[in-house]
Amino acid sequence: METTKLMVNRKRLLDTINVSSSIGSLENGGLNRLALTEDDKKMRNIFVKWLREEKLEVRVDDLGNIYGRRKGTFNDSPAVAIGSHLDTQPCGGRFDGILGVLTALEVVRTLNENNIETDYPIEIVNFTNEEGARFEPPMLGSGGVAGEFTKDFIYNTKDNENISFQEALINIQYMGDEKHRLRDIKYFIELHVEQGPILENNNKLIGIVEGIQGISWLNVKVVGETNHAGPTPMENRKDALAPTAKMVTKVYEITNEIEGLKTTVGKLNVKPNITNVIPGEVEFMIDVRHKDDEIRAVTIDRLREQLGTIAVMNNVEVTISTDWNSDAVLFSSKVMDAISEAAGVLGYSTLRLFSGPGHDAKYISKMADTGMIFLPSINGISHNEKELTLEDDIEKGANVLLNTILKLARAQ
Amino acid sequence: METTKLMVNRKRLLDTINVSSSIGSLENGGLNRLALTEDDKKMRNIFVKWLREEKLEVRVDDLGNIYGRRKGTFNDSPAVAIGSHLDTQPCGGRFDGILGVLTALEVVRTLNENNIETDYPIEIVNFTNEEGARFEPPMLGSGGVAGEFTKDFIYNTKDNENISFQEALINIQYMGDEKHRLRDIKYFIELHVEQGPILENNNKLIGIVEGIQGISWLNVKVVGETNHAGPTPMENRKDALAPTAKMVTKVYEITNEIEGLKTTVGKLNVKPNITNVIPGEVEFMIDVRHKDDEIRAVTIDRLREQLGTIAVMNNVEVTISTDWNSDAVLFSSKVMDAISEAAGVLGYSTLRLFSGPGHDAKYISKMADTGMIFLPSINGISHNEKELTLEDDIEKGANVLLNTILKLARAQ
Repeated sequence: METTKLMVNRKRLLDTINVSSSIGSLENGGLNRLALTEDDKKMRNIFVKWLREEKLEVRVDDLGNIYGRRKGTFNDSPAVAIGSHLDTQPCGGRFDGILGVLTALEVVRTLNENNIETDYPIEIVNFTNEEGARFEPPMLGSGGVAGEFTKDFIYNTKDNENISFQEALINIQYMGDEKHRLRDIKYFIELHVEQGPILENNNKLIGIVEGIQGISWLNVKVVGETNHAGPTPMENRKDALAPTAKMVTKVYEITNEIEGLKTTVGKLNVKPNITNVIPGEVEFMIDVRHKDDEIRAVTIDRLREQLGTIAVMNNVEVTISTDWNSDAVLFSSKVMDAISEAAGVLGYSTLRLFSGPGHDAKYISKMADTGMIFLPSINGISHNEKELTLEDDIEKGANVLLNTILKLARAQ
Repeated sequence: METTKLMVNRKRLLDTINVSSSIGSLENGGLNRLALTEDDKKMRNIFVKWLREEKLEVRVDDLGNIYGRRKGTFNDSPAVAIGSHLDTQPCGGRFDGILGVLTALEVVRTLNENNIETDYPIEIVNFTNEEGARFEPPMLGSGGVAGEFTKDFIYNTKDNENISFQEALINIQYMGDEKHRLRDIKYFIELHVEQGPILENNNKLIGIVEGIQGISWLNVKVVGETNHAGPTPMENRKDALAPTAKMVTKVYEITNEIEGLKTTVGKLNVKPNITNVIPGEVEFMIDVRHKDDEIRAVTIDRLREQLGTIAVMNNVEVTISTDWNSDAVLFSSKVMDAISEAAGVLGYSTLRLFSGPGHDAKYISKMADTGMIFLPSINGISHNEKELTLEDDIEKGANVLLNTILKLARAQ
C-alpha cells in the first residue's frame, strides 16, 4: 500500500522543535517553561498560529487545553486525538512531552501537503500543566477533561506565589470555553520520550507502552528520643535513625523479592540533625510502583508489617501513612497493535514496556482506546537540561506516529 | 572550721536561674539560645549587670568570652576560675552549662555578703559558643583561649545562614579585646549537669569528673547517581542512600563489639531529597568517643575499611574525612580531691566518672589544674527541653562548688 510509505519532513519537524527550544531556554540547552507563564503563552501563540496555517479548526477549553481539528471523511464520527504537553519542569529538557505535540503537528502537515483525507477527523491536543511543577498535582488539563479533577479543584490550585490556576489562565489570555473540551474521541495517541534507559539498554527504537504503573507514596515517621551523643550509654538510647537505617535496608530487601517492583527512598529528614545529638525523629518517603495494583497493595501491607516489627524491636514508634495512591492503567491492545504494525512496516525495532511516570494518556485512557509511543532518552536522563533524544530517533518516531494514525483513522 | 559551713542562698540562686530560663524560652520549658544571637545578647547583658552589682571587674575578650574578677588577698597571684557557658542547643534545656555560670555567680554573691576575702582572686567565666550548635565545632571560646583554635579559624566559622562568628560577635556588640583573654590561672572548676544517667542510676549526688573522653567526628560522603524513581530499573541504579543505610547499621554493629565505645550518626543529608528521585548523594557524620585514644583510633580505621567495602559492593563512591579530633583529657587529682573533701564535709554522696561530652574544662585543663562537678540529670536527658536537674540537687551542687573554691582559693 502506498500510504504506509508516507514519511514526515525531517527538516521541517526539527526546525519546528528548534523554535520551541528557543522559548524559555536555559544556558545548558534545557527549558524552563512552566505552565501558564509568559513563556508558555509565547509558545502557545506560535503553536496556535501553526495550527491555523494548517487550516485546522482551533479551540481552547476552560482549562486552557488547545485543540486543532482536521476534518475527516466521516466528519461527525469521533476523532483520533494526538498530542501531549508543551510545558516543562523548571530545569527541564527540550523534548519530553513537547515531541508529542510537535510530531502530531508534523503528521498533519504531512497529510495536508500530500492531500490525504482520513476517514475519521484528527485532533491535535496540547494539555495544560502536565508537569505539575507550577501547579500540583500534575496532569491537571488532561485530568480535568477526563473527569479526574473538578473544575473547582483545578481553578483553586495555587503556585508558590499563591497565584491560582484560574488567575494564571486569565493572565495569559487562554481562558476558553468548557464546551470546547475534548470529548467523544475514538483513540488517543501520545508520543513521548521514555525518561528511562530501558529502550537504550535493550537497543530498541520504538517503545510500545503497555500501560502506566500504579504508584503509592508512603510517609514513614520514626520517633525516638533526642539526647546528647557523649554521655548517653548505647544501651539507654532511643535513636530514631539507627532503626531507620534497618528499615531502608528492609525496603530494598522486600523489593528484591518481588518481580517488577520498584521502590525508592528519595526523601529522608533527620531531626534535629546535629552531629553530636542522638536523632529523636526521622521522616522518610517510600515511592512504590508496580504495574499490578494487587501486588502494590500486598507490598505496602508487607512494608507496614516489617517496618513495624523493626520499630518494636528497637524501642521506637513508627507511623506509616499513605500520602498518594494512583492505580495502574492498561493501554488499548488495538492501539499497541497499530503502533507495532506501523513500526514493523518501517523496519524499526520495538519493545513493549510499562511507563513508570504518569502521562496525559493515563487520564485520557478513561475516555477512549489509548496508547503511547516512547522514544529513547540517552542515559535515561529526564527532567534535566541534559535530557536528549537523537534527531534520527525523533524523525523515525514521527514516522511511526504518522503511520499509526493513518491506520487508526481509517474506517475498518 | 567555720568557713566549711558556709552555704549559698537557695532562693537567690533559683531566682537567678529563672531569669535565665525566661530568655529564649520554648513552649515546653526548654531554651533556644544559640550563641551570639539576640537572645544570647540579652542574657549576656543581664549577666554583666549582675557581675557589676557584685563589684566585679568585668572584661570581654576578642572571642566574646565574659569575665568577672573578684580581688584576692594576694591579688597578683593567679586566679581561681569558675564557670561554663550560657548558650544552648536549639531545643536545649534550662540547666546544662548555665548552672556552671550561675552557681559561680552565687558563690561570689555568698562570699560578698559574708565579707569573705579569699587568698587568690576569683574569676567567673562565660565562654562563647560551647554548644557548637550555631558555629561548629563546639567550645570555640574556651578552645580559642587555650590555643586549640586560631583566632582566624574561629572568626571564619559560619552558621547555616553563612554569617561568620566574627560578624555575629560584632552584631551583638560583644567584640572585646584579645588582651582580656583568660590567662595565668591556678585552677579552673566547672559545674555542669551530667547529661547522662550514671549518677541517677547509681543513686549518687555529686559527680567528680575524672576526665573527658576523646572524640572524633568523621564526615562520610556517599556519591551515586541521581535519577527518576519511576523508569529506572532497580538493577541500573546507583542509589546513594541504600548503601548509606547499610553503613549506618554497620557503624552500630562495630560499636557493639567494642567495650566502652560510643558512636552516633546524628546528622545525615540526602540530595536532592525529593520523593520520586533516586538520591545521588548522601553526607553524614559519625561521632566516635572513647576514653582510650588508641581504641578510638583503631575504631576509626575499622570504620573506614568496613564502610569502604560497603561502597565498593554497592557501586558507589565514598570519601571519609576526619572533621574534628580531640584526644581524651585527664583532670587534676588535686581538684578531684578538693571536690571530694567538700562533698564529704557536707555529707553528700559522690561518684567518680568520665564525661562523654566535651566541656569548656577540657580545653582549659591545658592551662591549669582543672576539674568538674556533675549534678544528676533526670533520666539522663540533655540537649532536650525535658532536661531536668532538681532544685535540691542544684542547691547542694552550689554548696559543693562554694566549699571547693574556698579550699582551692586559700594559699597553702
